[in-house]
Amino acid sequence: MFQTFDVTARPQDAVPRVARLRAWMAKTGLDGFIVPRADAFQGEYVAPCDARLAWISGFTGSAGFAVILADRAAVFADGRYKVQVRVQTDRDTFETVDWPATGLANWLPEAVPNGGRIGFDPWLHTPDEMQKLSGLPGITMVPCDNGVDAIWDDRPPRPQGRVTAWPKALAGKGDETKRAEIAADITAAGAEAAVLTQPEAICWLLNIRGSDLARSPLVLAFAVLHADGRLDLFSDPEKFADLGPDPAITLRHWDDFVPAIEALTCPVLLDPKTAPIAVADALSQATVIHGADPTALPKAVKSDAEIAATTEAHLRDGAAMVRFLRWLDEDRPDDLTEIGVARALEGFRRDTNHLQDISFETIAGSGPNGAIVHYRVNEDTDRPLAGDPVILVDSGGQYIDGTTDITRTIPLMDPPEEVSHAFTRVLQGMIAVSRTMFPRGVTGAHLDALARAPLWAEHRDYDHGTGHGVGVYLGVHEGPQRLSRASNVALRPGMILSNEPGYYREGGFGIRIENLIVVVEAQRPEGGDDRDMLAFETLTWVPIDRRLIRGDLLSPDERRWIDAYHAGVAERLAPRLDGADRDWLMRMTAPL
Amino acid sequence: MFQTFDVTARPQDAVPRVARLRAWMAKTGLDGFIVPRADAFQGEYVAPCDARLAWISGFTGSAGFAVILADRAAVFADGRYKVQVRVQTDRDTFETVDWPATGLANWLPEAVPNGGRIGFDPWLHTPDEMQKLSGLPGITMVPCDNGVDAIWDDRPPRPQGRVTAWPKALAGKGDETKRAEIAADITAAGAEAAVLTQPEAICWLLNIRGSDLARSPLVLAFAVLHADGRLDLFSDPEKFADLGPDPAITLRHWDDFVPAIEALTCPVLLDPKTAPIAVADALSQATVIHGADPTALPKAVKSDAEIAATTEAHLRDGAAMVRFLRWLDEDRPDDLTEIGVARALEGFRRDTNHLQDISFETIAGSGPNGAIVHYRVNEDTDRPLAGDPVILVDSGGQYIDGTTDITRTIPLMDPPEEVSHAFTRVLQGMIAVSRTMFPRGVTGAHLDALARAPLWAEHRDYDHGTGHGVGVYLGVHEGPQRLSRASNVALRPGMILSNEPGYYREGGFGIRIENLIVVVEAQRPEGGDDRDMLAFETLTWVPIDRRLIRGDLLSPDERRWIDAYHAGVAERLAPRLDGADRDWLMRMTAPL
Repeated sequence: MFQTFDVTARPQDAVPRVARLRAWMAKTGLDGFIVPRADAFQGEYVAPCDARLAWISGFTGSAGFAVILADRAAVFADGRYKVQVRVQTDRDTFETVDWPATGLANWLPEAVPNGGRIGFDPWLHTPDEMQKLSGLPGITMVPCDNGVDAIWDDRPPRPQGRVTAWPKALAGKGDETKRAEIAADITAAGAEAAVLTQPEAICWLLNIRGSDLARSPLVLAFAVLHADGRLDLFSDPEKFADLGPDPAITLRHWDDFVPAIEALTCPVLLDPKTAPIAVADALSQATVIHGADPTALPKAVKSDAEIAATTEAHLRDGAAMVRFLRWLDEDRPDDLTEIGVARALEGFRRDTNHLQDISFETIAGSGPNGAIVHYRVNEDTDRPLAGDPVILVDSGGQYIDGTTDITRTIPLMDPPEEVSHAFTRVLQGMIAVSRTMFPRGVTGAHLDALARAPLWAEHRDYDHGTGHGVGVYLGVHEGPQRLSRASNVALRPGMILSNEPGYYREGGFGIRIENLIVVVEAQRPEGGDDRDMLAFETLTWVPIDRRLIRGDLLSPDERRWIDAYHAGVAERLAPRLDGADRDWLMRMTAPL
Repeated sequence: MFQTFDVTARPQDAVPRVARLRAWMAKTGLDGFIVPRADAFQGEYVAPCDARLAWISGFTGSAGFAVILADRAAVFADGRYKVQVRVQTDRDTFETVDWPATGLANWLPEAVPNGGRIGFDPWLHTPDEMQKLSGLPGITMVPCDNGVDAIWDDRPPRPQGRVTAWPKALAGKGDETKRAEIAADITAAGAEAAVLTQPEAICWLLNIRGSDLARSPLVLAFAVLHADGRLDLFSDPEKFADLGPDPAITLRHWDDFVPAIEALTCPVLLDPKTAPIAVADALSQATVIHGADPTALPKAVKSDAEIAATTEAHLRDGAAMVRFLRWLDEDRPDDLTEIGVARALEGFRRDTNHLQDISFETIAGSGPNGAIVHYRVNEDTDRPLAGDPVILVDSGGQYIDGTTDITRTIPLMDPPEEVSHAFTRVLQGMIAVSRTMFPRGVTGAHLDALARAPLWAEHRDYDHGTGHGVGVYLGVHEGPQRLSRASNVALRPGMILSNEPGYYREGGFGIRIENLIVVVEAQRPEGGDDRDMLAFETLTWVPIDRRLIRGDLLSPDERRWIDAYHAGVAERLAPRLDGADRDWLMRMTAPL
């Protein structure tokens, strides 16, 4: 079992820890200290040794930060975690701040009206992030050692996960070719080297995968890629023992990283959105050229081999999902709880014999828990399904050949009208994105409203983006593309995105429907015009529960889409299922 | 009759004119000269004396420019004018360039590979525009006298239109108050004065209207607004004879403008997107602060009085439209042509006894002419309606209390399936924008796709924005708001926009449906959530031809919208009509 349901941080644990941090601050001459969720790699997941925010505050969300002052402390969390942050933190110790509506730059001057010295760990913050805090009246931002590390006695050790090669047959391109192409981009940007600080960039570039973190097959490492294609890799060399040597790649120890980049004197490309300030500072002899991580866009545009690989992973995962959904629908025990749901689903995925990990902690939110957008069930919050109208299950698997991410909302009773009405509105938004074509140049900011319009027209909305980029046996969240009003990245063929509108009735129920989709060149249909357009192809094939669909709200086009989708599900998954599972599949995929 | 249908510029006229300009270039020591459509005010309409682009090239579009080199010449025009520019220009004299896909910065280096001196009139170009042309290899941009003016013997005189006061009851705010508010904004921007070079800004600010240009009731003038609310107005003082004196406003002659701004030594706010380079250059003693014209946003956010005024103008105009549509439907002569349509429509508007002008040249495009997006009929292109499936009529009126802009596409026969299918898709996009609500902060870039999605899903699109801002007895096109992927201006209550998706089958037919809409605070409907949302209210109430609507393509929500819209049309217009017009209205507004 990958997922655990322990209550990992209890709000009251924070009380003595914050007291000890304050003592450290006083000793160090600081009036405050910032504890971000991020580690030095700025990824979504952090190793236990880097889970400083959870340790000091109890808040386990995937973004945000705490600020501890002498007499006040606050946790900053975004809309997804509005409810969770209140539940997980001690109210007497921490205020909770609605971020980014209120940022540090607004909050600090009010909280420290007479000014002060606020410490931060330069390995955990990026230049772009700190830029926003420069010049606050009376406030000095002080780079310093990490105060949490200083007081965290039983801090876990750095992870030592083995590294494996990722087959070129899946990647579609050898790592030498990738290095040569990115090196050419580095040269074109006027640099002679690039410092790479994101593990997913390094894994993609070298066609390797690791096991340093749960949920994402990443190798924690830093790298310097030179314009001639050579690469210096800074990590723990023992992790790489299973790989053969490569003359173009020099394995070095973490401790060599700072001296190595301090010695760089050439123009160096650095991404100020993702690199630690400590790295920028260490490049004191180099001419630093700011630009996006050069691997970001090539990584986002998947090769045909990657698309083919993840297509198979999605069908395998889809069959497991159907077996799970059939069980939940027909065979669930009367006393089933959310934890039981998550356990069962992981079991069905394990039964494929291909599951490497789940791709994130399964969200199984029954009734009102479904309205907590990034809800993670634990022993404290676990809720029986009986009596709730629907359960929202958002989950995914990591397979060698792909990463899945799917949400289905499942009725637990004859659904009340308000639930099926909302479900249908969410479905209409999800269909609108799925079936649109669009001219080249369009970004996620232009498409996001398509998913919301059916809700907007009823004075409703959801407080999260419509979709995020997804990797192939890599991060389940990756950029730069996304479906969001804040996105300015043009969609390109090969990019994988989630399409996941939702609706949340606080204290009542949550609805989300999510498929993964991939950008493709549009096929010009009969009657279509001669235009250069892109489209989405669906990767996720699993029934969308017809019992929650109000057919009378659908347009003829929407009805055609859902029937065609279900026909596609049946065609693809029937050969992979048998018996009761197959019978259930056929019933659930019949035309509306 | 306001509209004329003369063929104002014939392609062959350009031949001797271009030859004379080339002679002037040779004498002046220039290798090229730029002739923009714009005048010094950068507005949509230009006075006859400023129609230099039409005079030199024949092209009468509302944007674009020509470049004349010694042995080559080109007209740059955007997608709206793709067809028109080819028809209006002499092919042996002018290449036509698809702009802005290709701009001068791309074209010039190729056209003048050995470099050269390219002249431009600094009164007709803005700093932002010229910025893009700086640093082209080997090319020197030379500010100079205007070569067209130098050779244009029978150039018309500068317009001398009388200026009238615009009632405070319509504006909702006195000009003193407006000046005080804008002056405060100027101070907040760190300036002590602002140079205003846009006539619509000056008209709005002073609650005046003029008659210098056709179609827009503008006063051609420049102004300097001081931080104490005083204003220097540079124009032809005789135009203002009907207005009483105002001690806070100093009327000065055009000739005083340059000396006056040359003498400014304080910090001065200037909009580099709209001010002439000549003005920026004249501010040589001032500290220039670049920023948007300070009147732009306050002007765009209409007062309640302005909304009430234009609502009445729209109902008056709507009744005239119904009388026109009824006549076109039931009483049109067999030999009716597009010019006859435009004449008749202007006649129905004149019959209201309130028409000050049409708000732009009526677009009456029958059959294939409808597919020319900004088609203007003239004696050469005039086409009989008989035999065409539909005619597209885009028109509007200028009334003292408001500016209208409406497009209807009208069937001329039992419509072919491809026409009604496309019409219904366009209608669905138009409805999607009309009925959406949206959170505060959303821009036109986020909503544009709603109007296109029904076409996009069929591999179709239209090559123009979905909507533009509209004034109140002012410009029919005004910024900064618009419905376009290029817009980054958040929509605010009080902004008026057009909502006008279309579909164009080259050589076949054109379809566009356009209503004006105004941004309002959303009314939370039954079942809606407690959210801060905005919505659109419709200003335009005229039947949308039901004979072109394929009800079987509509969703239940879309059908409800069109029925409710038509009920609203009947309720509002029936009291303003009688006899056959009223009968026709009731038939055309019955539920689908």
